[in-house]
Order: sequence, then structure tokens, then C-alpha cells
Amino acid sequence: MEIDYSLNPIGFVRSPLKEPAEAPMQGNEGAPAARLELKQPFAAALSGLAVGDEIIVITWFHHARRETLQVHPRDDTTRPLTGVFATRSPGRPNPLGLHPVTILAIDGSSIKVGPLEAIDGTPVVDIKPALE
Amino acid sequence: MEIDYSLNPIGFVRSPLKEPAEAPMQGNEGAPAARLELKQPFAAALSGLAVGDEIIVITWFHHARRETLQVHPRDDTTRPLTGVFATRSPGRPNPLGLHPVTILAIDGSSIKVGPLEAIDGTPVVDIKPALE
Repeated sequence: MEIDYSLNPIGFVRSPLKEPAEAPMQGNEGAPAARLELKQPFAAALSGLAVGDEIIVITWFHHARRETLQVHPRDDTTRPLTGVFATRSPGRPNPLGLHPVTILAIDGSSIKVGPLEAIDGTPVVDIKPALE
Repeated sequence: MEIDYSLNPIGFVRSPLKEPAEAPMQGNEGAPAARLELKQPFAAALSGLAVGDEIIVITWFHHARRETLQVHPRDDTTRPLTGVFATRSPGRPNPLGLHPVTILAIDGSSIKVGPLEAIDGTPVVDIKPALE
């Protein structure tokens, strides 16, 4: 069986953060609220979600270097090189981002969530309930 | 900028679970331990991980129907149709699976983890530290 490994973005982040340098490393480090503007057909896939729900947004770090296998955690060169699977480095073989956020508003196919450190234009590939 | 949306599997699940019908719906519902057999170059990306660490394994549900937008939660038709983004349904536009597991052993590019409900042969696309 030939497996299809292509992601189709369900929408994009709309955020006041415009450049990677502006973004905190984690959402809980002062990130703002942002909107997830989903493509219209995916509004149906949001039913059952409500304001106040904790969800995990999965993004695709489209600026990331996929060749990266080891990094200095938090770009601190005094810390030893560490495998990317032990870190949240955006540079990694498949640059998926996991973002635990709270739903602040839902309007059709647009969801306001926060705090979210992903920058404006980041592709969104999935939304899931928070892990228990 | 043309964005590359293709996942490259970093390895595959090796599990005693061979068919979807055998697999519990969630790892904490009686799933067994399993091995993640990573491709050799990715061993370097594991450095810093240790036995006992809690990680999130991200898989690609290669059997899933990507057209699915709503499901009856837990296949219980007495429950109302719910958007897949409010559920852990494997059928969803981008069939990514998030699996919180504990590392039981590490041997080169092979990691034993558990409990894991993903079946044998499931592609693994990323490994991350547990969400705080």
C-alpha cells in the first residue's frame, strides 16, 4: 500500500506576532491571543468545542530547518547539544508544533485562542482535545 | 514561498497489536508496550532522553479516512455527531495521533515505550517532551 504522507493545512494563524524573533519560545512565556482562521469546510469539524475548552493546536513550522538533529536547548550555548526529540526545537525532521491553548471565542470557522507563540501565517494542521 | 507539507516518517511502531480491531481506543485502556524502530540517522536526535521520561509520540494514522469531519464519539451511535477536532478520532483531515507514553528502554535508534495503542507498522513522525 502506498501511504500518502502529505499534510493539507486546515487553516492559518492570524497573530500580532509577525516575525520569529518577536515570538516567545513557549505560549506561557507572554504570548498573545491569536485567531485560527480555518478553511470554511472545516467549521463542521469544530462542533462540540466551546469557549473555555483546553485544546492542542498542531502547527507546521514552515520556517524551520528540517535537517536539524541536535540543538543547544533554548539557544543557550552553555547547555550541551541535545537531540531535538528531547526538546521543543522548531528545527526537527518533521517540524510539527504542539500548542496547548484555551478557546476564547468561536465564530464560524474562526477560533480565537491563547496564549499562542506561533507567528502570523503559520499553517495549522490539526486541533485536538487537551491530553488528560 | 512554496511550503513543503510532506511528512517523512522517522520510523515505525513495532507492536503485538496487528489489526485496528485489536487496539484499545486510548493507550491508558489496556494498551501494551511497543517499540519505536527509528531510522538510523535519527538516533542522534534521541540524545538527552532517558528511561522513565514521559514523551509524546506523534504518529500518522495511515488507515484513517481523511474526509471525516464528524463522528459519534467512541463509535457510540447514541452520542450526537461531534466535530473531529473535538475528539481523538483517527479519521480527520490530517490523521496525526498524539500518544503520551513513558520510555521503558533505549537501544540505539530503538525505543521501547508504553502504553501505546498504535498498531504494528504505524508510521512515527515526531517525538516531543510531555506537555507541562
